[in-house]
Amino acid sequence: MSDIKKKSVLLIGGGGVGAIAALNLELGGLATVTVVLRSNFNAVNDKGYQIDSCDHGVVKNWKPSHVLNSVPNITTERLPPYDYIILTTKNCPDVPPSVASLVGPALPASNTHTVLVLIQNGLNIEKPFLASHPNTLVLSGVSLIGSAEPEHGVVVQEDKDRLLIGAFENPNISDEVKKTKAEEFVHIYGAGGKTDVKHSQNVEYDRWRKLVYNACLNPICAITGLDTGRIRLADGGVEGLVRPAMREIVEAAKKKGVDLGGDEVVDWMIEVDALELYLQPSMLMDVNKGNFIEFENLLGEPLREGQAIGVPMPTVQVLYQLAKAIQWRTKEKRGLVDIPKKKKAGE
Amino acid sequence: MSDIKKKSVLLIGGGGVGAIAALNLELGGLATVTVVLRSNFNAVNDKGYQIDSCDHGVVKNWKPSHVLNSVPNITTERLPPYDYIILTTKNCPDVPPSVASLVGPALPASNTHTVLVLIQNGLNIEKPFLASHPNTLVLSGVSLIGSAEPEHGVVVQEDKDRLLIGAFENPNISDEVKKTKAEEFVHIYGAGGKTDVKHSQNVEYDRWRKLVYNACLNPICAITGLDTGRIRLADGGVEGLVRPAMREIVEAAKKKGVDLGGDEVVDWMIEVDALELYLQPSMLMDVNKGNFIEFENLLGEPLREGQAIGVPMPTVQVLYQLAKAIQWRTKEKRGLVDIPKKKKAGE
Repeated sequence: MSDIKKKSVLLIGGGGVGAIAALNLELGGLATVTVVLRSNFNAVNDKGYQIDSCDHGVVKNWKPSHVLNSVPNITTERLPPYDYIILTTKNCPDVPPSVASLVGPALPASNTHTVLVLIQNGLNIEKPFLASHPNTLVLSGVSLIGSAEPEHGVVVQEDKDRLLIGAFENPNISDEVKKTKAEEFVHIYGAGGKTDVKHSQNVEYDRWRKLVYNACLNPICAITGLDTGRIRLADGGVEGLVRPAMREIVEAAKKKGVDLGGDEVVDWMIEVDALELYLQPSMLMDVNKGNFIEFENLLGEPLREGQAIGVPMPTVQVLYQLAKAIQWRTKEKRGLVDIPKKKKAGE
Repeated sequence: MSDIKKKSVLLIGGGGVGAIAALNLELGGLATVTVVLRSNFNAVNDKGYQIDSCDHGVVKNWKPSHVLNSVPNITTERLPPYDYIILTTKNCPDVPPSVASLVGPALPASNTHTVLVLIQNGLNIEKPFLASHPNTLVLSGVSLIGSAEPEHGVVVQEDKDRLLIGAFENPNISDEVKKTKAEEFVHIYGAGGKTDVKHSQNVEYDRWRKLVYNACLNPICAITGLDTGRIRLADGGVEGLVRPAMREIVEAAKKKGVDLGGDEVVDWMIEVDALELYLQPSMLMDVNKGNFIEFENLLGEPLREGQAIGVPMPTVQVLYQLAKAIQWRTKEKRGLVDIPKKKKAGE
C-alpha cells in the first residue's frame, strides 16, 4: 500500500502508552505517525525507542515516521490538517497549559476534518474541546494497556494493548459520522493484528467503569505509598478504603444512568491486578517521581458529578481533598506557588 | 532540703518531652528522677543531655540522678516502689509491647502506692491500666510543650512547658485521694517556678480539646507531607480537610458531654501555630523518620467514641483508615508483617 492512502496521524505524548500506539499504528501500515515529544525528545530523536513489548516483541532503535519537539502550527507552516490527532499526554487541567491549548496549533477552532482521539483517563475530558472546537469530532479512547517508560526512550509493555474507541457526544455532529469515524480509527489501529481494539457504543460506560479503579485504587495507593498488592494486604486497606470508595463511584454512575453492576465490578476491580505483582498505579508512580497527578479528571469530575445529583461520596471527597493538597505540594516544589518566608520561633 | 524528703520518680521515655520534664523536676528540688532510655541511652549515659530550653536556658552535659536502659524490676531487685512513674513514651497500642506491659516490672498489679502519670496524647489511654492495675491512681498529663530531640541526647525546647494535670476516673479510688495526689504532683512539678503546670478538674475536656488539633492537623499533615503552615496555604487544605475533621471531633466531644465551644475552638486550633513557623506536627515528623505513628489513640479512639454514639465522622474515618495503611507500611518495612513473594507479569 502506498503512502498516499495512509492516514496522517499526529500523536502528542510519546511515553509508555503513546509509543506503543505509534508503533502499532505504523506496523499496521495504514497510518503515518508524527510523534510530539517533550522530556524524551532527545533520547528518541537520537536513537529511537528501545521497546520490549508483550504485543510486538523486542524492537530496537525504532523511530516513528516523524519526531517533533513541539506541536506543529499547521496554519503558519502551511501544513495540511492531520486526519487524526491522538492525545496520550497526562491530563492535569489544574496545571497549565491545558490540553486544549497544547493541541491548538495543529487544530484550528473551525476544524471539521481532523478527528481528535483522547487516549486519556477520567471523566469530562472532552468538555473543554466542545467549547473550543465545537465542530471537531472527539473520540474517547479507554486504554487498558500496561506500559511504562522507566527511562527516556525505553518502553516496557507488560500487559496487552486493549483499547475501547467510541465517539463522545457532540450535538453538532451526526451519529452516522461518529460511527463511521470511530470504525475507521478502529480499523487503522487494529490493522497490525496484535491489539484488541474495539468500537464501543457506550463511552460513558467505559469511562465510569475504568473510574472504579482509577478514582479509588489510584489515589489510595498514591496517598498511602502502597502498591495494589500491599493495599490489599494492609490492615483495613480494602474494607476501610478501597471498597467504600469504589461503591461510591458505582453509586454515582448508577444515578447517572450507567449501571456498572454493583459489587461484582467492585470485587473484579479490587482483584484485577494479581496481588503478587505489587503493581504501582500511575498516580503512585507520579507521586514517587515528584510528577503532577491527574486527580481532577480521575477524582474531581466523578465527585462533582455524583455530588451534583445528591450521591453521598464521603470517601472519594476526602481522597480528592488529600490529592489536591499533594498536588499543591508538587506545585510548591516546582516553584508554581509563592509562600511567605519562614520565621523562627519567637520572631 | 535533704534527699530523704524528695519524691522518687521513674520517668520512662526521655525524648524531647521527657528530658525537659526530668530536668524541671530535678531543678525544682522536690524529686529524684530515674530516667529510662532506649535509643538515646548511650548518648545520655556517656555525656548527659545537651539542652537548649526556652524555660531553662542552655544546659550542657546534664544527667538525671539515675539513667537506666530498661525499666527496673522492683520485685526481683527488691527496690521500694516509686512515688511516681511518669510515662512520656510514644503510645502505639497497635505495636507491641503495650505501655502497660512496658511499665509492668516497676508497677505490680496490686500497686496502691505508686501514682502513674501519663504525659501522652489521645483518648482512653488510661483504660488498659484500669484493667491491669485497678487500684493504681492514674493522672492525666496534657502537655502543650514544644520540644524535640533532633539527635540522640540533644533537646531543643522552643515553646513553653505548659502541663495540665488531673486524675483519670477510677471507681476504686476516692475523689479526695485523686485531688490530693494531683495537687501534690502539680506542686512538685511546679517547684522550679519555670513551668506553667495546673491542676485540671476536667481531664476529659483537656483531652478532647487537644484532639481538635491532634486528631486532625496531625494526620492531615502526616498524610499530605505538608507542615501546619503549608496545609493552610494549600488549595482546599483548611476548608476541605482540616475544618471538616475538626468539626467532627468537636461534635463527637459535644455528644459525649464535653462542650468545646463550637467554631471558635476550630478557628483557634487552625491558627494556633503561626503560619510562618511551618511547624511539623509529631505525626508528620514520625512519618518522615519512618517511625510508627500514634494514630490509634489520636484518631481511632475519638472515632470509635463518636461513631458509638451516632456522630457522623466521614472525614476522620477516612483519615483513620489512611493512617492505618501508612502504619502497616512501616510495619512491613520493619519486618513485622510477612507478604507473599513478588511475581513477574506472566508468571
